Amino acid sequence: MDNLKRRLRYGMIGGGPSGGVGVIHRNALRLNNEADIVAGAFSRDFEKTRQTARELGIEEGRVYVSHEDMAEKESRRSDRIDFAVICTPNAFHYPAAKAFLQKGINVVCDKPLCLTPDEAAELQRLVKETGCLFCLTHTYTGHMTAREARALYRKGVIGEIRTVVVEYPQDWLLNALEKETGETKTWRSIPALCGRGASIADIGTHMENFVSYVTGLRIEKVLANLEALGQGTLLDNNFQVIAKYDNGASGFFWGSQVAVGYDNAFKVRLLGDKGTIEFSQEDNNYLVLRLRNRPVQRISRGSAYCAPESLQYLRTPVGHPEGHTEAFGNVYRSFCEAVYDKLDGKTVNEDDYGYPTIDMGVRGVRFFNACIDSHEQGNVWVRL
Amino acid sequence: MDNLKRRLRYGMIGGGPSGGVGVIHRNALRLNNEADIVAGAFSRDFEKTRQTARELGIEEGRVYVSHEDMAEKESRRSDRIDFAVICTPNAFHYPAAKAFLQKGINVVCDKPLCLTPDEAAELQRLVKETGCLFCLTHTYTGHMTAREARALYRKGVIGEIRTVVVEYPQDWLLNALEKETGETKTWRSIPALCGRGASIADIGTHMENFVSYVTGLRIEKVLANLEALGQGTLLDNNFQVIAKYDNGASGFFWGSQVAVGYDNAFKVRLLGDKGTIEFSQEDNNYLVLRLRNRPVQRISRGSAYCAPESLQYLRTPVGHPEGHTEAFGNVYRSFCEAVYDKLDGKTVNEDDYGYPTIDMGVRGVRFFNACIDSHEQGNVWVRL
Amino acid sequence: MDNLKRRLRYGMIGGGPSGGVGVIHRNALRLNNEADIVAGAFSRDFEKTRQTARELGIEEGRVYVSHEDMAEKESRRSDRIDFAVICTPNAFHYPAAKAFLQKGINVVCDKPLCLTPDEAAELQRLVKETGCLFCLTHTYTGHMTAREARALYRKGVIGEIRTVVVEYPQDWLLNALEKETGETKTWRSIPALCGRGASIADIGTHMENFVSYVTGLRIEKVLANLEALGQGTLLDNNFQVIAKYDNGASGFFWGSQVAVGYDNAFKVRLLGDKGTIEFSQEDNNYLVLRLRNRPVQRISRGSAYCAPESLQYLRTPVGHPEGHTEAFGNVYRSFCEAVYDKLDGKTVNEDDYGYPTIDMGVRGVRFFNACIDSHEQGNVWVRL
Amino acid sequence: MDNLKRRLRYGMIGGGPSGGVGVIHRNALRLNNEADIVAGAFSRDFEKTRQTARELGIEEGRVYVSHEDMAEKESRRSDRIDFAVICTPNAFHYPAAKAFLQKGINVVCDKPLCLTPDEAAELQRLVKETGCLFCLTHTYTGHMTAREARALYRKGVIGEIRTVVVEYPQDWLLNALEKETGETKTWRSIPALCGRGASIADIGTHMENFVSYVTGLRIEKVLANLEALGQGTLLDNNFQVIAKYDNGASGFFWGSQVAVGYDNAFKVRLLGDKGTIEFSQEDNNYLVLRLRNRPVQRISRGSAYCAPESLQYLRTPVGHPEGHTEAFGNVYRSFCEAVYDKLDGKTVNEDDYGYPTIDMGVRGVRFFNACIDSHEQGNVWVRL
Repeated sequence: MDNLKRRLRYGMIGGGPSGGVGVIHRNALRLNNEADIVAGAFSRDFEKTRQTARELGIEEGRVYVSHEDMAEKESRRSDRIDFAVICTPNAFHYPAAKAFLQKGINVVCDKPLCLTPDEAAELQRLVKETGCLFCLTHTYTGHMTAREARALYRKGVIGEIRTVVVEYPQDWLLNALEKETGETKTWRSIPALCGRGASIADIGTHMENFVSYVTGLRIEKVLANLEALGQGTLLDNNFQVIAKYDNGASGFFWGSQVAVGYDNAFKVRLLGDKGTIEFSQEDNNYLVLRLRNRPVQRISRGSAYCAPESLQYLRTPVGHPEGHTEAFGNVYRSFCEAVYDKLDGKTVNEDDYGYPTIDMGVRGVRFFNACIDSHEQGNVWVRL
Repeated sequence: MDNLKRRLRYGMIGGGPSGGVGVIHRNALRLNNEADIVAGAFSRDFEKTRQTARELGIEEGRVYVSHEDMAEKESRRSDRIDFAVICTPNAFHYPAAKAFLQKGINVVCDKPLCLTPDEAAELQRLVKETGCLFCLTHTYTGHMTAREARALYRKGVIGEIRTVVVEYPQDWLLNALEKETGETKTWRSIPALCGRGASIADIGTHMENFVSYVTGLRIEKVLANLEALGQGTLLDNNFQVIAKYDNGASGFFWGSQVAVGYDNAFKVRLLGDKGTIEFSQEDNNYLVLRLRNRPVQRISRGSAYCAPESLQYLRTPVGHPEGHTEAFGNVYRSFCEAVYDKLDGKTVNEDDYGYPTIDMGVRGVRFFNACIDSHEQGNVWVRL
Repeated sequence: MDNLKRRLRYGMIGGGPSGGVGVIHRNALRLNNEADIVAGAFSRDFEKTRQTARELGIEEGRVYVSHEDMAEKESRRSDRIDFAVICTPNAFHYPAAKAFLQKGINVVCDKPLCLTPDEAAELQRLVKETGCLFCLTHTYTGHMTAREARALYRKGVIGEIRTVVVEYPQDWLLNALEKETGETKTWRSIPALCGRGASIADIGTHMENFVSYVTGLRIEKVLANLEALGQGTLLDNNFQVIAKYDNGASGFFWGSQVAVGYDNAFKVRLLGDKGTIEFSQEDNNYLVLRLRNRPVQRISRGSAYCAPESLQYLRTPVGHPEGHTEAFGNVYRSFCEAVYDKLDGKTVNEDDYGYPTIDMGVRGVRFFNACIDSHEQGNVWVRL
Repeated sequence: MDNLKRRLRYGMIGGGPSGGVGVIHRNALRLNNEADIVAGAFSRDFEKTRQTARELGIEEGRVYVSHEDMAEKESRRSDRIDFAVICTPNAFHYPAAKAFLQKGINVVCDKPLCLTPDEAAELQRLVKETGCLFCLTHTYTGHMTAREARALYRKGVIGEIRTVVVEYPQDWLLNALEKETGETKTWRSIPALCGRGASIADIGTHMENFVSYVTGLRIEKVLANLEALGQGTLLDNNFQVIAKYDNGASGFFWGSQVAVGYDNAFKVRLLGDKGTIEFSQEDNNYLVLRLRNRPVQRISRGSAYCAPESLQYLRTPVGHPEGHTEAFGNVYRSFCEAVYDKLDGKTVNEDDYGYPTIDMGVRGVRFFNACIDSHEQGNVWVRL
């Protein structure tokens, strides 16, 4: 992506030396070649922030001690950041996002949006009031095949959705939990940092979001069972959810972070009355389409027969695989397009750009909180 | 399978010209080459029974008008049948099985065992009292890979089961339902013939059974949601079940007979604390084994590294696919082995032979009735 | 397959206790339920023949010491066999087939037809002269997906073939060779029993045949390289062939019986100017169809959209896998249909029935001999 | 990848607005975040070069009319480029590479190295004489799974290679050829730009290289058949090669750019006497390992059980797919590591860094020329 537009500037909250996802955000933005990192508060330990800043070539005056610090000082600069990227532990999403929104700075926030429905509502209100752009980095919505699925659904290829089946088994947490001691925990095992829900918030929100992203359907109520399997943390690491959507469709979600032998096997099946779409994150270059009385079809990302809505994101030719970094990059490309339009003074309707919005974030927070409520109340239906 | 033992004799209830599964039972028994069909009451329409009998070369004196007729008359012959095969609509399983058991004749019965837990308990009691052998033809337990899965589990390869995930999407019912009129219904759409549950009894029992067959685990309670999607019958054709097993493991079942684009995609995943086993009916020559921190392995039926418990059923060499007929045949081979042992005067413990027993049948009936109860009571936990 | 036609009678040459493939022939015929084995010369060791005959319930008067013996005596019976099945080591195919043809008895012969082009021409001449039916059991032509591929090709779906790519890796011979001693060899390691070519005759002929069966194309010339890898026999166990077809298409064949980790991975790709068909023996329930600028399609055996030419062979519903035994059975069903028609006095054109004929056998023998010639002459083009 | 080392500088020859691969080179280098583009001669049309330079933010003084111009002027700057990237049509690789080597500037060159063995030998001589680093961007060697395959081979996991089977079907050229007119051709259809060989040079060299990269084996002689299928160009677009390696192993290569329905299905199988490794470019996150009498294993890139030689290139966690851009990036990372070491005054043995070297380039050019010679001489063995 070579371009002549002015380069955008961004600052990052979190993403310091110990944090994995910050590097992935930065890589995606580098691949896009539209925005440069110019500010950072990468860690609660300022020394670590300074170290990361040096590695990234950030000038000293834009290395900040906190999100408040960055929001405050950047908002006063003429060359201020065009957006802040928040990739901290979940508990800090809310205060950080709030700080930037209040200063009128666009926000990109890792998922889940925040910990509670009240926080979510507050952020939603702030976004509406300030007119700031807000992007939630549900990575998987950035896959070309996610965009293709959305286009197929919108064209009516699979008809009306009747049931959805989503699974997301991983096993990385299994080893992590067994190695944990009282002193060494990842933040995902610490309720104060990750909130009431662990897996249900971490991967459950991806599950809810992807269906909603592709189809626009919204969950009305959930019935959930959460489990803490094995030794280690007492937070949920395996869950089952039955859901009801606003069009009457049912949903069936299984997520696990202690499923031995699965890497990151997020898989979504959307079953309509005319056809079925299957998306598998680990095989992201392909989409499976099942139509009535027809051979199963495998759609290959980037093929001439694909929809413009997905083809516009092509980086490498069909058959030359793309992956997670490109998906992340596509979310950012969609977002930066909105940023440019806003800079150009255009009216921006965020839903038109293809990135996950604050509204999706609100639904995700309601979703995982309702699941926890359902579980705590004895596996009963809880409305979102 | 060439052999010198005396050939066994069987009679069949159901399996007439309109019924598909009778042919498959007969094919499987032919492939085994141990038993000959010598008696039949193939249809409630005696003319159809006679027609089928002629095609099968059954002598006139052993063509019967009903199961009572066959049970009565065969029981008085010196060359009486060694077992009766019941492959009627579900509602007739109970009376037919009862008739043969009461006459001391071994029974092979298609699944589900019967319609209600009371019927099931009665049949179980009769089996114990009479000492008759009783085989329930849950076909999928006959796959060499099912036997291999059982051997692996029993060796402790995957450790203690913590959660199971079972899915069974089909779409054949979709077209069938849309073609139905008031007059033309398959028996599966008629409660009087198939009982309270349609899909939950038909495919749901396979799902419950397979897990139980491989692991010996028993479900303690279920929480189920049943749906009747699309036009046509009002019986359930799509369902979701959360289950709790007697070892504390959870289960997650999705079944559908209106899932567009799926043929018969029964898939079972058994997740233990050391590893995961995956069985896919449509890919029955292979078993997937996932162990901690190891590459995913694909076990190929009939390989030298397989367990004797599966290798003993080999018919074609590794790499030369077997399928549904062999699976059916293997269930019958296991059963006929018990029949021969009983004829030889040996003490027979049915659990040792590898075929699904009356006890499994009882659990299946309890399972699907509990699911219906759970649904009818508002998706609450119901104990089996 | 229940039916009212008179049951056919067959005799078997080979297929005794040590021979694997005889059992598979008999199983396939049992599954079909059209023909009964009534005569046999199962082994060169008459005691073994008698043992097998007892197991199969063959009456003493029809147990023969040799193929000559069976041909002679059966030809004089009024209830003589309807066909002879030859499943001996390759070297005996020719004399056995000749003996039956000369007595006017239909023949089913395992592949390859015989050892030399001269023998092949002689058998071809005898078939034409006697009007006997002759079926060569190239099993893979019996898969429903092979019949479907043929129907698709004939409909022009993939256009004109431009190149074909066929591979056939196995590894069973690897262990066998390493265990061989001077005394213990399978007949496949003994030139006097298997002829000049080992793997090229055994699996190479399957490769040549399948392409020819589906497309009708004939190879004009070959350029081959044969290798004897590893320890053990000096006969070929790994080969590469470049071929030219009569329509100008090229072919590329790789076969190996010492390819570590492959069971029986026969795979054929037919590349036309409009599309590509892929057949994989190990995944025989599916066929892959690739069309220009279209998603790759997976055709599922037995689906409503399939051609009548394949659907007529359906035994178990779509999604309920069939395998090697059904394929064998389908070859026999095609053949027995011709036998019945001939018994009914109809004019029989063997090409219309779908089983591999003597002409295909002739081409196979020419193919593998030409490959050996090409190799022996220094990898040069040799015409068939 | 954040780092503190001084950023490297590079210039690019080719890669202007009409050329696809230049963007991919630049994206890969951006992702790596080690080197910045500071100079360019992107097109033979200087106006296009200037346009691309503007888009890339290159200062005017470093926008050059030709590779000679760049080599000459950069070599005199104190802040001269650390390496030149050549991604022109094949015919210009030789003069461009020569120009930079003669000025002592390190070179990265797209494949194939050049058109003739003489050119290749000359470049090889220049590299040795000047001590310049030389990297040939055979992308697929950059996949983590390629590095893993190499590590497995070197550990002896698959033993001694006995045969290799490589295929590379694509279909993009099919449509391109049919759209061509006398005036509109891609350079790949113009011998003056792409040399004697089209597909054999373009994808054939990838095939030869990958085997050699992983195993170190070298081809001694080839026997090739080249074809120009369909309408359009008369250059080769489908080929078959039989090869002999220096250890006695045989090779079998099929490549096609007119294979309907294949995107970029490069697949390599290395068959040793202990096991087999399979690499599939389109499924680059996995490697298939087949060992004797063991289940087939699927190695997942980035797993804890992988070798350090592959794990060092991890960018996204296991189960989060990487693709073509990362592979390209990894080749550059290997190369830049050597550049840094050379800058640090270390002795650099290019073979230690993992990127494809000039020697591999020489072999590739000899390979495809020998294939063309073999074909032109009537499909005979030709030594490299």
